[in-house]
Amino acid sequence: MKSEKNTATLALLHERAHALFAASRRRASDLRCSVVEIGGASVLDCGVHEAGSLQSGLVLAKLCLGDHAEVNLTPAEPDMITDIAVMVSTDHPIAACLGGQYAGWPLAADKFFAMASGPMRMLRGREEMLQHLNLITTADSLTSAVGVLESDRLPDASVIAEVATACGVPAARVCLGVAPVTSIAGGVQVVARSVETALHKLHALEFDVTKVVSATGIAPLPPGAKPGDTVEGIGRTNDAMLYGAKVTLWIDAPDEEIDAVAMKVPSESSSDHGQPFAKIFKQYDYDFYKVDPMLFSPAVVTIHSLASGRTWRCGKLAPEILRTSFGIDS
Amino acid sequence: MKSEKNTATLALLHERAHALFAASRRRASDLRCSVVEIGGASVLDCGVHEAGSLQSGLVLAKLCLGDHAEVNLTPAEPDMITDIAVMVSTDHPIAACLGGQYAGWPLAADKFFAMASGPMRMLRGREEMLQHLNLITTADSLTSAVGVLESDRLPDASVIAEVATACGVPAARVCLGVAPVTSIAGGVQVVARSVETALHKLHALEFDVTKVVSATGIAPLPPGAKPGDTVEGIGRTNDAMLYGAKVTLWIDAPDEEIDAVAMKVPSESSSDHGQPFAKIFKQYDYDFYKVDPMLFSPAVVTIHSLASGRTWRCGKLAPEILRTSFGIDS
Amino acid sequence: MKSEKNTATLALLHERAHALFAASRRRASDLRCSVVEIGGASVLDCGVHEAGSLQSGLVLAKLCLGDHAEVNLTPAEPDMITDIAVMVSTDHPIAACLGGQYAGWPLAADKFFAMASGPMRMLRGREEMLQHLNLITTADSLTSAVGVLESDRLPDASVIAEVATACGVPAARVCLGVAPVTSIAGGVQVVARSVETALHKLHALEFDVTKVVSATGIAPLPPGAKPGDTVEGIGRTNDAMLYGAKVTLWIDAPDEEIDAVAMKVPSESSSDHGQPFAKIFKQYDYDFYKVDPMLFSPAVVTIHSLASGRTWRCGKLAPEILRTSFGIDS
Repeated sequence: MKSEKNTATLALLHERAHALFAASRRRASDLRCSVVEIGGASVLDCGVHEAGSLQSGLVLAKLCLGDHAEVNLTPAEPDMITDIAVMVSTDHPIAACLGGQYAGWPLAADKFFAMASGPMRMLRGREEMLQHLNLITTADSLTSAVGVLESDRLPDASVIAEVATACGVPAARVCLGVAPVTSIAGGVQVVARSVETALHKLHALEFDVTKVVSATGIAPLPPGAKPGDTVEGIGRTNDAMLYGAKVTLWIDAPDEEIDAVAMKVPSESSSDHGQPFAKIFKQYDYDFYKVDPMLFSPAVVTIHSLASGRTWRCGKLAPEILRTSFGIDS
Repeated sequence: MKSEKNTATLALLHERAHALFAASRRRASDLRCSVVEIGGASVLDCGVHEAGSLQSGLVLAKLCLGDHAEVNLTPAEPDMITDIAVMVSTDHPIAACLGGQYAGWPLAADKFFAMASGPMRMLRGREEMLQHLNLITTADSLTSAVGVLESDRLPDASVIAEVATACGVPAARVCLGVAPVTSIAGGVQVVARSVETALHKLHALEFDVTKVVSATGIAPLPPGAKPGDTVEGIGRTNDAMLYGAKVTLWIDAPDEEIDAVAMKVPSESSSDHGQPFAKIFKQYDYDFYKVDPMLFSPAVVTIHSLASGRTWRCGKLAPEILRTSFGIDS
Repeated sequence: MKSEKNTATLALLHERAHALFAASRRRASDLRCSVVEIGGASVLDCGVHEAGSLQSGLVLAKLCLGDHAEVNLTPAEPDMITDIAVMVSTDHPIAACLGGQYAGWPLAADKFFAMASGPMRMLRGREEMLQHLNLITTADSLTSAVGVLESDRLPDASVIAEVATACGVPAARVCLGVAPVTSIAGGVQVVARSVETALHKLHALEFDVTKVVSATGIAPLPPGAKPGDTVEGIGRTNDAMLYGAKVTLWIDAPDEEIDAVAMKVPSESSSDHGQPFAKIFKQYDYDFYKVDPMLFSPAVVTIHSLASGRTWRCGKLAPEILRTSFGIDS
């Protein structure tokens, strides 16, 4: 990205995420959430000690995205096993999805572990992808570090201290949303990652993702797994991506660059494709690093070239796998 | 519901419904409605002497729901006979749908009769269901009684007086929206009742509905019947529920409690299922009380257990009955 | 339309379009657009020298419609070749779609040519249809002339001068949005014309369109054509209408009046129906006036009579033609 414009855009992700956090804390009760002060930081509990809600799932998704995307519930396709889908649409795909939404910060402190996402990752700036894409920002005295933790526990003060230090802000400027993947809100915010998943895969394929101009994605909302059954929760939400998500990307790049990757973007390009994710995960002894990284991508990816007017449409939906994964017979 | 939180939430239904009513009266012309003062009350005519509109139908729906739900027009499934559906989504299903939206107040005065819905029912507090669910509120000096009448006539001063007295508010604090079921707005507001219909059925089945945490529903928008043909209007809107609505409920209850009711929730569990409602109604000499109360429910009901991660999905769409009911050949 | 109410409504189209323009210029960077001052006027570049965006396409659509319609991205039907559709819904169909959205002003000056749409057409008041429908307004000292140009060039000062003179406003009160039909925003704003296309066809069939009360439309969003290939761009966006759009009209008119036109409204009533538009256009030597004017209409048109409760549903989707037109194999 061009330097000056880039800096302004990225700063705006922090600002808008913070504004949304502030608005959400004022309506926490309406969202069936609560705000807890932990180590000086503000934590929005969307599913740990509170029930959470569909709406708070949309809030978490938008917090991750620095409020630079539309995220809505919408009817799912007739054959997609569940009736509701999460639709996301953005004209800032790289900043919002890779700078914000990607869960690239493994946040470990004492006995706590969570994958962290949100614009605060750009303040930390440690991820190679963020460095590569020039998605790094520096906090000034007004910057808030906003993020989302996928976890079935709230962070403690030591976790907050780590976040504050890593982001270069005082703890009082750390704002976190938390929900387990098995909860209503957790499910919504994960399933809002269809575009992000496609972009991350493109990046892994060494495509220059800064050429992606706009993007939309739709994925079915799975039932939450039993509380505490994180593997099943991860399984169902991943399957909603791998076997149920349809992403459209508008890209400004030469045809040969798109040709080189288009067929590899959908999940079916991976040899691990074809089984519910929880089963694959178990086969690899629950070790993420053993799963084929090429698996993590949407079922169907449509690429429109803004340069040539050509379209590539690859992959296919696999509702029968969703049926097994979601545990829905009829 | 827990007492203190409950009271605050229910008070909010009155407040938000009133705020929405106030905003809607300011844009009445834009909504193709008019505001009439009757017996000191404010009445928003959305289809009696005015044409009304799709947007005013959404307003009526939200007034009923105490503005505690999202209600939108959305594309219908390809095979659902009409192209537009009404989607509703709420994280406050009991307060919004049973406390507000259910049309449980038969409002009769002189020659006027209407089924009344909206948060004002909780001020009246006479319905057994409201008492059972602790959905009763008391007016203070700032409370407005907001409701919706399904009627092809505007209420007169005596009706207003009855509402004011029953709700314990001065007539000047009564705010009513009115539309015939045959009108554009009337159709939209009735078809927004998919979730409410499922919840009321669950309550009739003696399920503890306070365990329903979140809910979504989608139902096709039928053509309005000929003005004055209320039976056909009721028929088509009921059929949109019985044969066209798909509802998803997130419930926090033991599996055995859900097992006991899941198959009974969809309309197909009733022996009256299978014919257009207007025909059934005629068979029972237009006497609602003779129709099987188990009939009034959505076509398809999906229940996700938040406790176990299990899903129940029962019922089926019946587009061929919608085709007959809606009078659409092709 | 009734005179006084009509005047107020039409004035509101100018006001709201201007308010939306003002809001959009403040977030131009967010919309990936820029605002350029040309000959004293404000021009929002949504795709000429800027990339534009999905969101700016929605803005252009609403500017055309005088902000009197809802316009949203929504999932397309499973078989409609692309995954995203544009949905429009309005309770002011004649003012918004024919007074505002119809591209009825061929704006030529020096070497510049664009089809112009938007409420400013009513200030010019030269189109026969506008005169016939009493959709003409006079500028006062506060009126802004807001319009949208489908063009791959920005207008120059002489074009602005022509617009200002024709509309009877100073150049400083001219506000234009511009995007090529091949761009992201250009595609969105054209595909938002499903209802307008149906209404214009009804008008061409000499139906009294003032009897259309409300309307909705859904059409698939095609890939943009190669920049500069305007014929292909026009082809794909027209095909989204002719072979992919489904429009619903609520009409208050006697059955015989609807009977006389219903079957003629969808595109299949034209002898030119059945091939991609770019091919048809070429056959007629790229001369719009040789193409059957009856071709320009949605694929499927549903008419609900508010007077009789009857429904007419005519036409059919033709996804196989969209596949060819959009250049999408799988």
